[in-house]
Amino acid sequence: MRNTKLVSLEEAIRRSGLKDGMTISFHHHFRGGDKVVNMVVDKLAEMGFKDLKLAASSLSDVHAPLIDHIKAGVITGISTSGLRGELANAISHGLMKEPVVFRSHGGRGSAIANGDLHIDVAFLGASSADELGNASGCPRSENAKSICGSLGYALPDAEYADHVIVLTDDLVAYPNVPKSISASQVESVVVVDSVGDSAKISSGAIRDSKNPRDILLAKQAAKVVINSGYFKDGFSIQTGTGGASLAVVKYIRESMLENGIKASFALGGITAHMVKLHEEGLIDKLIDVQSFDKVAAESIAKDQTHQEVSAVDYASADHLGSAVHALDIVILSALEVDVDFNVNVLVGSDGVIRGAIGGHPDTAEDSALSIIVCPLLRGRIPCVVPRVTTLITLITPGKGVDVVVTEYGIAVNPGRPEIAERLAAAGLKIVDIHDLAAKASSIIGKPDALPFGDRVVGIVMDRHGKVLDEIHNIED
Amino acid sequence: MRNTKLVSLEEAIRRSGLKDGMTISFHHHFRGGDKVVNMVVDKLAEMGFKDLKLAASSLSDVHAPLIDHIKAGVITGISTSGLRGELANAISHGLMKEPVVFRSHGGRGSAIANGDLHIDVAFLGASSADELGNASGCPRSENAKSICGSLGYALPDAEYADHVIVLTDDLVAYPNVPKSISASQVESVVVVDSVGDSAKISSGAIRDSKNPRDILLAKQAAKVVINSGYFKDGFSIQTGTGGASLAVVKYIRESMLENGIKASFALGGITAHMVKLHEEGLIDKLIDVQSFDKVAAESIAKDQTHQEVSAVDYASADHLGSAVHALDIVILSALEVDVDFNVNVLVGSDGVIRGAIGGHPDTAEDSALSIIVCPLLRGRIPCVVPRVTTLITLITPGKGVDVVVTEYGIAVNPGRPEIAERLAAAGLKIVDIHDLAAKASSIIGKPDALPFGDRVVGIVMDRHGKVLDEIHNIED
Repeated sequence: MRNTKLVSLEEAIRRSGLKDGMTISFHHHFRGGDKVVNMVVDKLAEMGFKDLKLAASSLSDVHAPLIDHIKAGVITGISTSGLRGELANAISHGLMKEPVVFRSHGGRGSAIANGDLHIDVAFLGASSADELGNASGCPRSENAKSICGSLGYALPDAEYADHVIVLTDDLVAYPNVPKSISASQVESVVVVDSVGDSAKISSGAIRDSKNPRDILLAKQAAKVVINSGYFKDGFSIQTGTGGASLAVVKYIRESMLENGIKASFALGGITAHMVKLHEEGLIDKLIDVQSFDKVAAESIAKDQTHQEVSAVDYASADHLGSAVHALDIVILSALEVDVDFNVNVLVGSDGVIRGAIGGHPDTAEDSALSIIVCPLLRGRIPCVVPRVTTLITLITPGKGVDVVVTEYGIAVNPGRPEIAERLAAAGLKIVDIHDLAAKASSIIGKPDALPFGDRVVGIVMDRHGKVLDEIHNIED
Repeated sequence: MRNTKLVSLEEAIRRSGLKDGMTISFHHHFRGGDKVVNMVVDKLAEMGFKDLKLAASSLSDVHAPLIDHIKAGVITGISTSGLRGELANAISHGLMKEPVVFRSHGGRGSAIANGDLHIDVAFLGASSADELGNASGCPRSENAKSICGSLGYALPDAEYADHVIVLTDDLVAYPNVPKSISASQVESVVVVDSVGDSAKISSGAIRDSKNPRDILLAKQAAKVVINSGYFKDGFSIQTGTGGASLAVVKYIRESMLENGIKASFALGGITAHMVKLHEEGLIDKLIDVQSFDKVAAESIAKDQTHQEVSAVDYASADHLGSAVHALDIVILSALEVDVDFNVNVLVGSDGVIRGAIGGHPDTAEDSALSIIVCPLLRGRIPCVVPRVTTLITLITPGKGVDVVVTEYGIAVNPGRPEIAERLAAAGLKIVDIHDLAAKASSIIGKPDALPFGDRVVGIVMDRHGKVLDEIHNIED
């Protein structure tokens, strides 16, 4: 190769022209197994950078080391879809001066595309890359160390960032084909020991649940799907994070076989369950913004009808062409739902940030039918609550939420009476959502007011780029 | 589908906001079989548009109907890689007031990406599309009517045009996967009877030659490749248009087998010859900006290691990541070469435009070794000529041209003495290019000066965005 972009991480950073105050970006396709964020920020700290703004597609437990970098002033701003673990806890307690900006996956894609979120330097981990920068989430050589499949969340960064650095643990001969990120978008390529631990992708919020309540809720949600009026040949489906929602596909399979119904596509985070149905011919295409497990990642590596999609093409509100506009049914989780069907998936009932917006508001708003699966109670915590504005953080406005499935009955948004009629006709137990909230309250009693402080630690943006809610600091 | 972009051509044009004076664009993947340009410009004329600028990736014989639209003032500007047939002849004789702007494929990609060539409305033919606009050059249904394979030249238009209209003759169920053009880039989808006649892709300059002189030249060029020093395991190769250059791959195959040499990739216009070697394991990857025949188009439809590449990723001079930077050997044609190795591939020796720049200057400049195959004479027309500036139109500057293969011997650029040494050592007949020009002259005599007028009918841009040469009108 007469030209090469191969350099050390330090040299790549130097060549990028990164300066204090600039914005750096990362993707989260390795989820809890990510090794790129900590590695790069450690290096930036060592090189003496300060006041950097970190724009991640999401952050998780594994990013607790950022706490020290925030304390030291290396990182002074964060935008992300979610926060979990120690980092989330510290931020909820007031670690940062500048509020964290939370966006949905579609909202982040749009913000990058329209310039609201300008990225100076993107650091993008890849499971294979050649020395000119053609990069993929799929490994290509015998030396492969990782696999994450789709690089959907990284594609807007690769396209719009001023400067793109690809980090890879599998340097392959040019040309790396097929590629997700094109060499012409990439300035430097850095070989590292590991970009991520693929075994940890399928953990946390996307583990395969064996919890009996999750299975019960999944089976109920499957009945809602089947009787909703949208379960017909050529329908499309997405399942969000959370054991119960992910499992729904398993329970509609039998009905698909019995009734000769096939899905035209499954969208979003793609799971082994969906790959199985795809390979059986029950789901025609897989549109994958994020491979939720190794089976899905291995499928996208070999199957042309299992297609990677960028966050913009997946869920942007700015384009009628984004896939959510063609989505029939989405099944989603919730930390809390209020009686107006508003949903919180970000802040725990203790006031501490412990989740991620993900594609929740994107898919809820644009799908034909959105179904929330959510237990009435989690331990001593009610999940269906009286009213949103003061109690829960608003992530997905209720007007986009059609059905809430709990173990105490199914509530249907009064704006969708035809759905309620169909489900009742099928013998499902339809309840008023106010009764669910009252039931939860009668079991638990009125929860104590949370000790929120008066500092804003998080700002929730809606997918159209407007401020939707604020998250206050929590005091011990 | 709750949303659709399906409209009639007229409605699509109305919605586009197209106004007189604006720029419309087209791709030429159907080459001589294209039906989109004429259909759309007929409609625009019918709707009363005037003063439109037509930015095509290339134009050919089939576009002769544009002559009337130019006369009527519907089309007042053209930019293209090439012109052939009646349209070229008329333009050479002064049909247009505004000179045609000629760019290489890489130069057009760069100009679109950097804003030098701004496209208001792109009209992009596709062999399949869904009603949200996911489009492909590959057919997907039983009703398929066409196939063109790669949509490489259309991808910058899809990405950068203000408004994109996809025309298709195979409307398929959403989602059309895999896609070349993404739904989020597309505003309207128009179903038409035919976007192109695939049988006519492989005609004209890319037909498979049976001409004995072409075969002789191809065999000589193959010997040059084999003895150039670049023919080793992992080498890469591109063959340009013209029977002799396209055929070279056939004649290096045996040597690859004998010597256990495999190519890492073949680039550019991909042919059935290359697909054969790829399927035999002799060429690892195919990087396809334009499928030169139906076999290539059918291969890209099914083979993940046969990858579509955009004009930008193929040949932009603005990015070290474009594939030409990794290209070892390119074999190209010429209408004329002068003694400084400058090449003309656009204007015939009669002064009439009759060719296309294509990727000629892109690949010549950035490859490690560029080989021109060119007969000394075509009938009574010399192809190796004394001096460029006044005689031939400058398309590819001689500093990027390394070897000229004629049936009277092989000339090597004095800037590459090591190549001359290697070829001579292999027993090939190395001649001074001045002797070739003298030989041609001695056979033909000094050609009469051409009756050029003083009007500029064409401007040749180099791939870096600067004016390289002008083409004057020719008088009868």
